[in-house]
Amino acid sequence: MLTEDLDLYNSTWLPKVEAYRAKTGATLKGLVPEVDVAEDTLDVTTVPNSYLSKEELEITTSTATKLVEDIAAGKLTSEEVVRAFAKRAQIAHQVVNCCAELLFDEAIIRAKELDSYFKSTGKTVGPLHGLPISTKEHIATKGHITHASYAAWVEHEEPEDAITLQILKAAGAVHFARTNEPLSLMVGETENNIHGRTVNPYNRKLTCGGSSGGEGALIGMRGTPIGIGTDIGGSIRIPAAFCGGYGIKMTSLRMSLVGSILPGPGQETIICTMAPLTNSPLDTELYLKAYLGAKPWELDASLVPLPWREPDLSEKFTIGIMYDDGVVKTLPPITRGIKYAEDKLKRAGFTVVPFPPIGTTEIPKMAYASWFADGGKAQLEVIGKSGEPYIIPLKKAKAAFTGQSIDAAAVWEINDARDKLRQVYKAQMKSLGVDFVLCPMYPGPAAPIHEMLYGTYTIMWNVLDMPAMVFPTGLKADPEIDIKDPEYSPISPPDASEYERYNPETVKGAPIPLQLVGPRYMDEWVVRAVQKIAPVVQG
Amino acid sequence: MLTEDLDLYNSTWLPKVEAYRAKTGATLKGLVPEVDVAEDTLDVTTVPNSYLSKEELEITTSTATKLVEDIAAGKLTSEEVVRAFAKRAQIAHQVVNCCAELLFDEAIIRAKELDSYFKSTGKTVGPLHGLPISTKEHIATKGHITHASYAAWVEHEEPEDAITLQILKAAGAVHFARTNEPLSLMVGETENNIHGRTVNPYNRKLTCGGSSGGEGALIGMRGTPIGIGTDIGGSIRIPAAFCGGYGIKMTSLRMSLVGSILPGPGQETIICTMAPLTNSPLDTELYLKAYLGAKPWELDASLVPLPWREPDLSEKFTIGIMYDDGVVKTLPPITRGIKYAEDKLKRAGFTVVPFPPIGTTEIPKMAYASWFADGGKAQLEVIGKSGEPYIIPLKKAKAAFTGQSIDAAAVWEINDARDKLRQVYKAQMKSLGVDFVLCPMYPGPAAPIHEMLYGTYTIMWNVLDMPAMVFPTGLKADPEIDIKDPEYSPISPPDASEYERYNPETVKGAPIPLQLVGPRYMDEWVVRAVQKIAPVVQG
Repeated sequence: MLTEDLDLYNSTWLPKVEAYRAKTGATLKGLVPEVDVAEDTLDVTTVPNSYLSKEELEITTSTATKLVEDIAAGKLTSEEVVRAFAKRAQIAHQVVNCCAELLFDEAIIRAKELDSYFKSTGKTVGPLHGLPISTKEHIATKGHITHASYAAWVEHEEPEDAITLQILKAAGAVHFARTNEPLSLMVGETENNIHGRTVNPYNRKLTCGGSSGGEGALIGMRGTPIGIGTDIGGSIRIPAAFCGGYGIKMTSLRMSLVGSILPGPGQETIICTMAPLTNSPLDTELYLKAYLGAKPWELDASLVPLPWREPDLSEKFTIGIMYDDGVVKTLPPITRGIKYAEDKLKRAGFTVVPFPPIGTTEIPKMAYASWFADGGKAQLEVIGKSGEPYIIPLKKAKAAFTGQSIDAAAVWEINDARDKLRQVYKAQMKSLGVDFVLCPMYPGPAAPIHEMLYGTYTIMWNVLDMPAMVFPTGLKADPEIDIKDPEYSPISPPDASEYERYNPETVKGAPIPLQLVGPRYMDEWVVRAVQKIAPVVQG
Repeated sequence: MLTEDLDLYNSTWLPKVEAYRAKTGATLKGLVPEVDVAEDTLDVTTVPNSYLSKEELEITTSTATKLVEDIAAGKLTSEEVVRAFAKRAQIAHQVVNCCAELLFDEAIIRAKELDSYFKSTGKTVGPLHGLPISTKEHIATKGHITHASYAAWVEHEEPEDAITLQILKAAGAVHFARTNEPLSLMVGETENNIHGRTVNPYNRKLTCGGSSGGEGALIGMRGTPIGIGTDIGGSIRIPAAFCGGYGIKMTSLRMSLVGSILPGPGQETIICTMAPLTNSPLDTELYLKAYLGAKPWELDASLVPLPWREPDLSEKFTIGIMYDDGVVKTLPPITRGIKYAEDKLKRAGFTVVPFPPIGTTEIPKMAYASWFADGGKAQLEVIGKSGEPYIIPLKKAKAAFTGQSIDAAAVWEINDARDKLRQVYKAQMKSLGVDFVLCPMYPGPAAPIHEMLYGTYTIMWNVLDMPAMVFPTGLKADPEIDIKDPEYSPISPPDASEYERYNPETVKGAPIPLQLVGPRYMDEWVVRAVQKIAPVVQG
């Protein structure tokens, strides 16, 4: 699985990659025995149960919120927690290939330091004292290679930790793992020429999503309490949702991006965001409070000085449901999921109204034109530098790499259209009296490998810069229920393509996620609203 | 003065402009007799003294803060205040040609409504109840032409008031005047083919500055208590400072720009800001509190939801002085002004340290490349549409109108360089322990007509997106003191050009302003700091 797409005969880039792989690969072994799972086992989420002690299982299935409480109360040590997650991450890596490297040695040293500080002072160093965290590989880590998925950069080191990582470490977090991402960072799956492909813990024939796919898979395996990803078109939400977790795309410029390495910085029609993937919406709040409490704007001049604000959320808010985007309908599992959620929410007393999509044909065009406004030149250059092969699905994405930059006036036009669209969505929320929008995250549950193609359901909230959080409904795709309608009449060519490729048997067991969206900068409100509605839907 | 640069033989655009001029010109007469001032009178700031009653003079020389207090206490009516300022604005217009139109009829109706509301309820409608305000002409005003300086748009009406104007009206402000701006809005003087040239009230041979030059001149004449301008490179600060007033360029995205009309929207490497010109820094605070208190982000999706924050300013903060930008030195009046301010501040107990400029050769290049990233095509198109003549100084600025757009990758590079520069300035403020930077606003005081050429002192804070406020030192250019040094050795070609053109006699009587700059988003702190230091410097 690791090397099927590699051009093994190209020797110019491979030796360096192999040297890097040997070094980082060694960090991913040794804490647990080799896992014994049949190649055709689809759902591997329960594999850790056979390899971890009762205590380790309890730790790794706790929320991060409970873990920091227990560490701060002296009930657990950071070392115990780091060891348990490091073991579980190694098990996870063996079954879904999710990690780039494990930072076990330095994590244990730091955990012991924190434990000893706590023991001698009775105090914590910050709100994340002792908590292990993992990060997507392109987030710069001092003293380690940061290759950002490119063979050309496999010897590249950044001089400092990314600012976000600095903040988390200062808050007491223990950086223990770095996770896989796709070549180019711009596809919704996770596969590159360095670490190979990461797959979905609930069904290994499906993608874990991307680009923060290593984080998504590790969260799905509960191999990390909090993972940090980045999202410019769905790259946090797709893997979090495909792998059964929670993931938020924040409003832009609240979290520092300084030190998240990528080719061609400076694109800002759609601004990337860095945020957590978790196994509980309480942990998203824990993270945001700790992070914003550190006043990141004092370190990064690009950020807005908005601290955590306590949401004044009404008991039963109004939810607008966008059933589909009007271009590609949802596939049967998601159609079921959204109906299920709607029924539960109505019965729980929430007001639910339809929320029509607007501009969903134009939105993805605006997004692709913006991301690849340089004609993909920055990407082409760094990929071309090593000569590494394009891999599927990047081969498909490569169509956007025309090599022809659009001009500044065209960028201005998109910016202006984007601002007008933001006003239109704001006005529609106001006129419908809607507090949040509930919608699909993708037409189906996790896609089969190399078939994650349609991005509008996540991309639209990046273009609109509205905070959007995915959560699991608790349902799983079921071939007995989510059957295909032979009479289905597609509403567009991409809709026809998605429906035609849909196979109820293939996506068996994949989590059915949904997405909740709020007004710009109301990130705190979205997190709290998910805390309220996710248990209602799941219950 | 009005028509010297007009191409009177071009009949395609002139009749429409003449029709517009006839209509708006009529609103600028009738409340006061024709003013009798010799053509060669330079300083016209005292002219209103001969035409207004004692009460009218008292009203028009009050702060806006005092006026709203007096109206809210029933000591003054809005109608009295509006009438006094309308008269004074008509006097001002006769001597410096600062207005586009006066909205006297509707202002009086609104003032009466507000007075009657107050009389019957004892309440005000908002924090600006009854206060007259003026706006730069390109700020859309429902029911009126908004031409934004272009002959081609001299019949153009916007369907709604600009959002900022809506907010001010809802807060109780009475919109009573609209003011002149230069053709293209992108020069530091004020002259167009519709209204002609606005000049400086302190010396009519000098420019009032621009692009919010009508507002600057009206503030200098005390013909408005608060004027609203826009600033993307100095367009609020230059006219406010040249005309002896206070003007703030806010951090971007705190004030709505929706409805400020200009060609080619969507440029956002350097984001324009809309903010007040005043005659007191107390009035800047009055405005900001009223404006931000109205939660503008609930109306405009592009804004950051930052309310007015009470500054936690230490008693004696540390001021870094940037004596000059290292490319063009200050001319004698400004050199004197900054030394004078430094001495006063030191004696008052403020800590003062030197603040070296960084990147000031690159900064204006980044700015021009960004503003005219489309090669000036948007401007060329709307100017070309009417066939109106380019006027000096736009002829000079026209050099930037290459007609050749840069590509998106070049925009990305500038954005990235800009973000890095913002980090560098942040780091330098931190390492020097500096709370604010005090610096010149321009190499000299108000420039002679068509000689306002060098913009780095204001542009740099737009590129850095740091809030910057200009204030008068109380000093005026004095040919007896501010003499030329025959031995002066220039540090650069533009420095040589500025020094060579400097004539102590020409700028006689021009106010000597300075500029105070704070960290991004610390607008409230900058306003309060100016409230503290301006009286120290002026005292």
